[in-house]
Amino acid sequence: MVTNDDGITAPGIRALIEAVRDLGDLVVIAPDKPQSGMGHAITLNSTLRIHAIQDVEGITEYSCSGTPADCVKIAIGRFLPRKPDLCVSGINHGSNSSINVIYSGTMSAAVEGCIEGIPSVGFSLCDHSLEADFSNAKRVVQKVSKKILENGLPQGTCLNVNIPKVPAEELKGIKVCRQANAIWEETFDERTDPSGRKYYWLTGYFKNLDDGKDTDEWALSQGYVSVVPVGIDFTAHRFINELQSWNLK
Amino acid sequence: MVTNDDGITAPGIRALIEAVRDLGDLVVIAPDKPQSGMGHAITLNSTLRIHAIQDVEGITEYSCSGTPADCVKIAIGRFLPRKPDLCVSGINHGSNSSINVIYSGTMSAAVEGCIEGIPSVGFSLCDHSLEADFSNAKRVVQKVSKKILENGLPQGTCLNVNIPKVPAEELKGIKVCRQANAIWEETFDERTDPSGRKYYWLTGYFKNLDDGKDTDEWALSQGYVSVVPVGIDFTAHRFINELQSWNLK
Repeated sequence: MVTNDDGITAPGIRALIEAVRDLGDLVVIAPDKPQSGMGHAITLNSTLRIHAIQDVEGITEYSCSGTPADCVKIAIGRFLPRKPDLCVSGINHGSNSSINVIYSGTMSAAVEGCIEGIPSVGFSLCDHSLEADFSNAKRVVQKVSKKILENGLPQGTCLNVNIPKVPAEELKGIKVCRQANAIWEETFDERTDPSGRKYYWLTGYFKNLDDGKDTDEWALSQGYVSVVPVGIDFTAHRFINELQSWNLK
Repeated sequence: MVTNDDGITAPGIRALIEAVRDLGDLVVIAPDKPQSGMGHAITLNSTLRIHAIQDVEGITEYSCSGTPADCVKIAIGRFLPRKPDLCVSGINHGSNSSINVIYSGTMSAAVEGCIEGIPSVGFSLCDHSLEADFSNAKRVVQKVSKKILENGLPQGTCLNVNIPKVPAEELKGIKVCRQANAIWEETFDERTDPSGRKYYWLTGYFKNLDDGKDTDEWALSQGYVSVVPVGIDFTAHRFINELQSWNLK
């Protein structure tokens, strides 16, 4: 199963389909419009529409009016005869390393696949351009996807793979990493509409607060692909004992 | 700072404001419409509008056209002179226990507060009704909020508090828990619009796969309030060694 968050027409998902098309029978289900930054949103207060398209090479593709997580849910819940062997999401136009995992529609599709018990992975290229060169990324997709099909993934764990924007000869390899501790410092661009009323665009600066050499940010800065295993148990287990000492009764 | 995901007019946020109004100076910033199931969505492809309202008791309230995470971001990035001492989100109309934390707009606001370095907590009452009785929940809000103001919370950790739907005399107390391993089994309700085209509503069954007595689901089923510490490092640390043995190079 192939999905993404940039929408079914994005170059990134076309590159992803090309990369995995020899690995098995494909089903493509992706949003009908860009859904970047949708986090793990699902559509509860509105309805979903699905359109099936036969692409030029005979693969059935579905475009869905919902979020990336909706795409995975409706594929499993309604359109697929069985659970897929692999769920690949991306290739995202732009990084989903460190704290971006929490805002990422690409990763929400992979996480949803993981919740559904499917070995799942999100791929992101650290290049926002629509004309980005996906050739490195496609090789990484093939390598990682094959490894997942061979080895499986533990229940409740998926992978977040980011590919740096470097020429092929400068790509140093693949590093297993942890999520860097980083944040966005938001600024809001205030503008005035033709009626004189204010509106805002969310913008901001990315700030890495983590100097660890085992992080995804470090690996990417050095020209490595970063692979972070991502879990779905959000419990901060290390804080449970201290919280118990608060004597909340 | 007070926020929610059911929108600024929801009874749950009114109950939350009443519960915390004696704890300090309040600022309310909440979505201008229901945003349930928005996960950690942020608004990247559209603009945000903010309206300030002076409520009857003189508290300034802002309604925001964005998601719960947007509300927290724009409050910090644009409207507040300093970071608040506490970010409370809710009181949600409906449970946000176990896997619901991942889909929850209520918790996304608390998690965003946490990312911003603010002690943050989400409160949810396990009752979807608009006429729900928030009196137990308000006492829990006061108790937990005071404890957070006294003790603080570690960087990168917030709290997910769920209150069972029971009469006051049957409420057994408060338990510190871990997130239960549970899923939604989706079903999609297929309907036909007046033009003869199909559309879908997301529905489903909640399935608890976890028989641990240290989980939020167990605590709630026994009449306890559940308090789960929630982290923002999604790395599945336990899988890092095995993943390294894959020799992805």
